[in-house]
Amino acid sequence: MSVFQELHGKYIEDLEVGMTAIYSKTITEAAIEIFAGLSGDTNPTHLSNDFAKEERFKERIAHGMLVASNITGVLGTKLPGPGCLYMSQTMKFLAPTRIGETVTTRATVTGINLEKNRVTLKTDCFVGDTQVLDGEALLWVPSREKM
Amino acid sequence: MSVFQELHGKYIEDLEVGMTAIYSKTITEAAIEIFAGLSGDTNPTHLSNDFAKEERFKERIAHGMLVASNITGVLGTKLPGPGCLYMSQTMKFLAPTRIGETVTTRATVTGINLEKNRVTLKTDCFVGDTQVLDGEALLWVPSREKM
Amino acid sequence: MSVFQELHGKYIEDLEVGMTAIYSKTITEAAIEIFAGLSGDTNPTHLSNDFAKEERFKERIAHGMLVASNITGVLGTKLPGPGCLYMSQTMKFLAPTRIGETVTTRATVTGINLEKNRVTLKTDCFVGDTQVLDGEALLWVPSREKM
Amino acid sequence: MSVFQELHGKYIEDLEVGMTAIYSKTITEAAIEIFAGLSGDTNPTHLSNDFAKEERFKERIAHGMLVASNITGVLGTKLPGPGCLYMSQTMKFLAPTRIGETVTTRATVTGINLEKNRVTLKTDCFVGDTQVLDGEALLWVPSREKM
Repeated sequence: MSVFQELHGKYIEDLEVGMTAIYSKTITEAAIEIFAGLSGDTNPTHLSNDFAKEERFKERIAHGMLVASNITGVLGTKLPGPGCLYMSQTMKFLAPTRIGETVTTRATVTGINLEKNRVTLKTDCFVGDTQVLDGEALLWVPSREKM
Repeated sequence: MSVFQELHGKYIEDLEVGMTAIYSKTITEAAIEIFAGLSGDTNPTHLSNDFAKEERFKERIAHGMLVASNITGVLGTKLPGPGCLYMSQTMKFLAPTRIGETVTTRATVTGINLEKNRVTLKTDCFVGDTQVLDGEALLWVPSREKM
Repeated sequence: MSVFQELHGKYIEDLEVGMTAIYSKTITEAAIEIFAGLSGDTNPTHLSNDFAKEERFKERIAHGMLVASNITGVLGTKLPGPGCLYMSQTMKFLAPTRIGETVTTRATVTGINLEKNRVTLKTDCFVGDTQVLDGEALLWVPSREKM
Repeated sequence: MSVFQELHGKYIEDLEVGMTAIYSKTITEAAIEIFAGLSGDTNPTHLSNDFAKEERFKERIAHGMLVASNITGVLGTKLPGPGCLYMSQTMKFLAPTRIGETVTTRATVTGINLEKNRVTLKTDCFVGDTQVLDGEALLWVPSREKM
């Protein structure tokens, strides 16, 4: 069996509406620093205590897109996993995530189009009981028979 | 003048439909390695030549969310810049971005709601002449008079 | 169900001799640079073309420990996955890995001690058909009934 | 004298049983984030406070292999230093290393085989007075006369 076959995630036929997967990751100061470099988002909201303390949340908050990056963690490694292609993502930022808070991200299959090889997933991020992000992902997922 | 005031980006009254800003960043192998750790997305599509060569694009591609992170770079530093809050973002992934390709990201103001302090921006990413991502951002932007 | 339970990997009762899991990752120049910083191993064998060309392999090679780090990738995320504790690892470096080569790492369960909650795995790394590392891992894996 | 000669570490004739070298490095949150990407080990034991608090150590711990990577730091830069080849390494993980703790790693020559150009070293990692790792390294070290 090839590396490709062994590492491949779920095929479209393996998916069912209601399936879920999660990942959990603490938002560290280090990740915020590094993500600033990778994204070019050096907004002092994320990097300067002095600036952030005069803003609405009174302290530095994580980049919304860094929080959202956990979604690709779930989709790309668990549900559906390797072999899928990302077609679109929507996200609403519902609450800020502060340094040291832990984000738990859940993806739930909400729709499957077998003919077009497309799957829709609800993507939710939580800090404790507070939902900080909701969104929807659309992915292309290969068929077993076409491989 | 305080650090806060000097660093602050545009206020809602400063914005006009049609204003644009861009950022440009090469997608490096290093960024992909590091983003895998930050996002938890260790999908071999991004990290393994042996896996990727059997997929549709025949070589490793960047995480779509890493490409998209350039959007927050433009919004958070240039238009509207520090002081805004990210409310939502949509994105369609139109084409893959390969290692070493340079992503140029443009944000264009498309709508302003002065009463609710909200601005809508079209967000487009290009590699050369190929559009690799399109999307829309919604942000809360403070008023001068309310500060 | 708690985050802990949902993210937990296999329990000792789930394991059987012969089970395998793999991961595949290209050894990039970026990873070598970064690993040099994380490990303190700034040996010019890994970082200087001028030094390396006078050595046995005539070009820079990856740190053996960077290649070996793929083992913890397989063990910590797949087999047995989250919840295990690393007790020991042996490794023999059989051949060098060069920049741009893709390492495929396989873990195979070779022994299970239900009383002591210990599992032994053979850990093998390959570049194409060439085995570059072999070794053995010992892990503590929790029981379902004790949780 | 060439770069190669000036940078070269100890030759087999320079080594004596009992020689030691150390290195010391703090295990930072940043290193754990980045090592997760390099190794593919995104186990929430290392990355999620919410997951880790229900495990035995009650908080996130460093990847054992990240701690062990300090060994290659000592061997590759100090004893014997550039020019050696890594043949094998064993390691026992004796205690967890937490974020912010400083690992001091000592290598001690325990055996020399002049005919085969091989040297054995005891490799020990400590956090304060607590030994967190012990192991043994075997390296090939060149002779002066053969160069």
